[in-house]
Amino acid sequence: MESIVQKRLTAEFIGTFWLTFGGCGSAILAAAFPELGIGFVGVSLAFGLTVLTMAYAVGSISGGHFNPAVTLGLWAGRRVAGSDVLPYIAAQVAGALGASAALYLIASGQPDFAVGGFAANGYGPLSPGLFDMKAALLAEFIATFFFLFIIMRVTAPGAVPGFAPIAIGLALTLIHLVLIPVTNTSVNPARSTGPALFAGGEYLAQLWLFWLAPMVGGVVGALAAYSLGECAKKTPA
Amino acid sequence: MESIVQKRLTAEFIGTFWLTFGGCGSAILAAAFPELGIGFVGVSLAFGLTVLTMAYAVGSISGGHFNPAVTLGLWAGRRVAGSDVLPYIAAQVAGALGASAALYLIASGQPDFAVGGFAANGYGPLSPGLFDMKAALLAEFIATFFFLFIIMRVTAPGAVPGFAPIAIGLALTLIHLVLIPVTNTSVNPARSTGPALFAGGEYLAQLWLFWLAPMVGGVVGALAAYSLGECAKKTPA
Amino acid sequence: MESIVQKRLTAEFIGTFWLTFGGCGSAILAAAFPELGIGFVGVSLAFGLTVLTMAYAVGSISGGHFNPAVTLGLWAGRRVAGSDVLPYIAAQVAGALGASAALYLIASGQPDFAVGGFAANGYGPLSPGLFDMKAALLAEFIATFFFLFIIMRVTAPGAVPGFAPIAIGLALTLIHLVLIPVTNTSVNPARSTGPALFAGGEYLAQLWLFWLAPMVGGVVGALAAYSLGECAKKTPA
Amino acid sequence: MESIVQKRLTAEFIGTFWLTFGGCGSAILAAAFPELGIGFVGVSLAFGLTVLTMAYAVGSISGGHFNPAVTLGLWAGRRVAGSDVLPYIAAQVAGALGASAALYLIASGQPDFAVGGFAANGYGPLSPGLFDMKAALLAEFIATFFFLFIIMRVTAPGAVPGFAPIAIGLALTLIHLVLIPVTNTSVNPARSTGPALFAGGEYLAQLWLFWLAPMVGGVVGALAAYSLGECAKKTPA
Repeated sequence: MESIVQKRLTAEFIGTFWLTFGGCGSAILAAAFPELGIGFVGVSLAFGLTVLTMAYAVGSISGGHFNPAVTLGLWAGRRVAGSDVLPYIAAQVAGALGASAALYLIASGQPDFAVGGFAANGYGPLSPGLFDMKAALLAEFIATFFFLFIIMRVTAPGAVPGFAPIAIGLALTLIHLVLIPVTNTSVNPARSTGPALFAGGEYLAQLWLFWLAPMVGGVVGALAAYSLGECAKKTPA
Repeated sequence: MESIVQKRLTAEFIGTFWLTFGGCGSAILAAAFPELGIGFVGVSLAFGLTVLTMAYAVGSISGGHFNPAVTLGLWAGRRVAGSDVLPYIAAQVAGALGASAALYLIASGQPDFAVGGFAANGYGPLSPGLFDMKAALLAEFIATFFFLFIIMRVTAPGAVPGFAPIAIGLALTLIHLVLIPVTNTSVNPARSTGPALFAGGEYLAQLWLFWLAPMVGGVVGALAAYSLGECAKKTPA
Repeated sequence: MESIVQKRLTAEFIGTFWLTFGGCGSAILAAAFPELGIGFVGVSLAFGLTVLTMAYAVGSISGGHFNPAVTLGLWAGRRVAGSDVLPYIAAQVAGALGASAALYLIASGQPDFAVGGFAANGYGPLSPGLFDMKAALLAEFIATFFFLFIIMRVTAPGAVPGFAPIAIGLALTLIHLVLIPVTNTSVNPARSTGPALFAGGEYLAQLWLFWLAPMVGGVVGALAAYSLGECAKKTPA
Repeated sequence: MESIVQKRLTAEFIGTFWLTFGGCGSAILAAAFPELGIGFVGVSLAFGLTVLTMAYAVGSISGGHFNPAVTLGLWAGRRVAGSDVLPYIAAQVAGALGASAALYLIASGQPDFAVGGFAANGYGPLSPGLFDMKAALLAEFIATFFFLFIIMRVTAPGAVPGFAPIAIGLALTLIHLVLIPVTNTSVNPARSTGPALFAGGEYLAQLWLFWLAPMVGGVVGALAAYSLGECAKKTPA
């Protein structure tokens, strides 16, 4: 029994390491490479693919959350036991920290390295497009609302097996395609915490927003999905 | 019974909100970001992923139309009851309006905000590539014809379960890859209506085309698929 | 019986129209749009998605070839009856011509329209990267060899149902990611023929290569797959 | 019996040819094309799609490794017999060499051809972003660790059939989205060896790292997955 709990926390640690290493790593190392860089479209793809691949890899062990807002939302939606919430979140934050440290080691191997924003999230002067706090709050709330709504629905009993990681991973890609200019896109407090510790200063001072908005948005989105209940199956069109 | 109707309209509202928020949002917020912007390729991906993700999420509730041309086309193709058509379209337009308002709130949080075209559709001087009205009509007709043809076929009885949202979502991505320069791509009167109300002026005066061409194209495309009937299954190649 | 033959040819006509409209259309209308254009990566995605979407839509009717090299290759691989080859090819060429005409009508609605290369294929001075004839022959041969090898294998008896359109469509995307600079990428004589008739001149004079190399490559690739036979199933890794 | 062994090695040869032709070919021929080039995002997509398509095509024959680090890792994870390891690696290296020769023939058909780096991997002065040897070692170790971890898990007994090629192929895309600036991305000693023989000089002198780091990372990643064992199935979220 103990062993199964450990495996689930290991899965969340590994998955959130991968999410942060792949998503933030693509932003730090590859987004702005001269001429050939991947830009926001590549970063969006990278974040989505971390979740798609790891949900296939360890979804059967831990459920594949990799995100405190997902864990809390799924608890609100009656999918996760209350006793799992804090351990899951701890494992997720640890994974994000480990990945940020690994990225720091790699990035500092470049001659002209400067830590800069280190893919941390921000609003106002720290927003890529200088969007203000109100815009950041609303954007993160809406995006996490829909993220949890989709997660709840595509993992509901009766869903065709196997497709949930595609839907969930590509939902995260979509969210990044819209929100990177606004907040650098969080919807995931663990992913926000790792880089903020390395970027430091104002980025740490703004970290509260990237816990608050995704957690609230995720809970409300999961409740909205829960309230729809399980419906009669029809062919999707 | 009443409750099931409400759930279906809620699903269409939420899905069309997501389509407009994600698709038009990526265009407004991220497409032209200096150096790193997602361009038309990112916007195309975003529109497709809104449908892919929401078709998995609520396809089993409402069918996952999110588009008056889809609803009308599927009615012409004998897949949707006539009594559903108007309520579905109302819910879709409401969802697109809600998303446009949310995008306006977020976008106006940027210091140098100006509403501009707000991702509305247009022809002639309002076409991204200055394509004339005839080109716009033909492009929207053909694209929606094929969109409904594909939707009808991949949701026909006998299709392998689970793949329809991938085919339909990526069909919408494909359509955007071709048509954004021509009309900014509609094929969806609800998606056209929301932003046009915020862009105002000439965009509103051109809105008729983005109801007419998709509705006609969708009906004809669905009838073409219907006339092929259900055929003997063969291994796809 | 007659009716089934007609449906299959209709499916090939529609599918090849879509392939040419979507793939060549994205190249003509959207690839080089200033600042926001989709570039070769968007065109590659568009070509692949035409096949992915139409293989789901009409694969169960006609097999979903949309390409004379596929039809001939599958005949060499004992998957298609000899009596189907010429009618299929005729329907495919007709579909490509129809799509090219539609694209011409749309493209000519732009003020500064000039037909130019019209997404036709070419080598030497007509190659996007000025690659010579030998490079073009080799590139088209190898790419169509692998294209048919993959098609034969993923539609072999015992394959997991439903995934073939994904593998085949994305194989076409991959081929375009590599070969657009060399020949503008054909691997499909029908797709080459439509635009060449509108581009005219030297493009028509070079059309032979885009029938020869894909047809030979496709036949050899299908025979290679055939010679592997049906093997004991193992879990793919 | 003999015949089955030959088929498996043929499959590995063909698959690794495709991986190198498609992945390195996209980098050599299309990445830096003026204005319209596919950049690192297109190259990342190309590498992933080579594996996705070939895993569907020949995964049932050979397991679809196409990579010495995958073969060695799966041996460490008790999925591959020890007697397969060296023949598989030989077939993979031969495939990569064949593809590199084919690419050389095609690339040399361009008027201003110079072999340059020829998509070989490198660190220090040969790293695209000038990352040092320590960063290269760490990046290649981590990426191959996760690559094998994912491969082991998504091909474990009990996984939903059919999705493994998607997860594995897109994991390779993700790895390239992050690491191209660091090492040009190897995680595959065969893919590294082919181009290095054509690029020559310093690229050959650095080849040891792209055997060492992926092999070690792959073995450790596979052992990590093995140690998680087969767990109780839950719905992935």
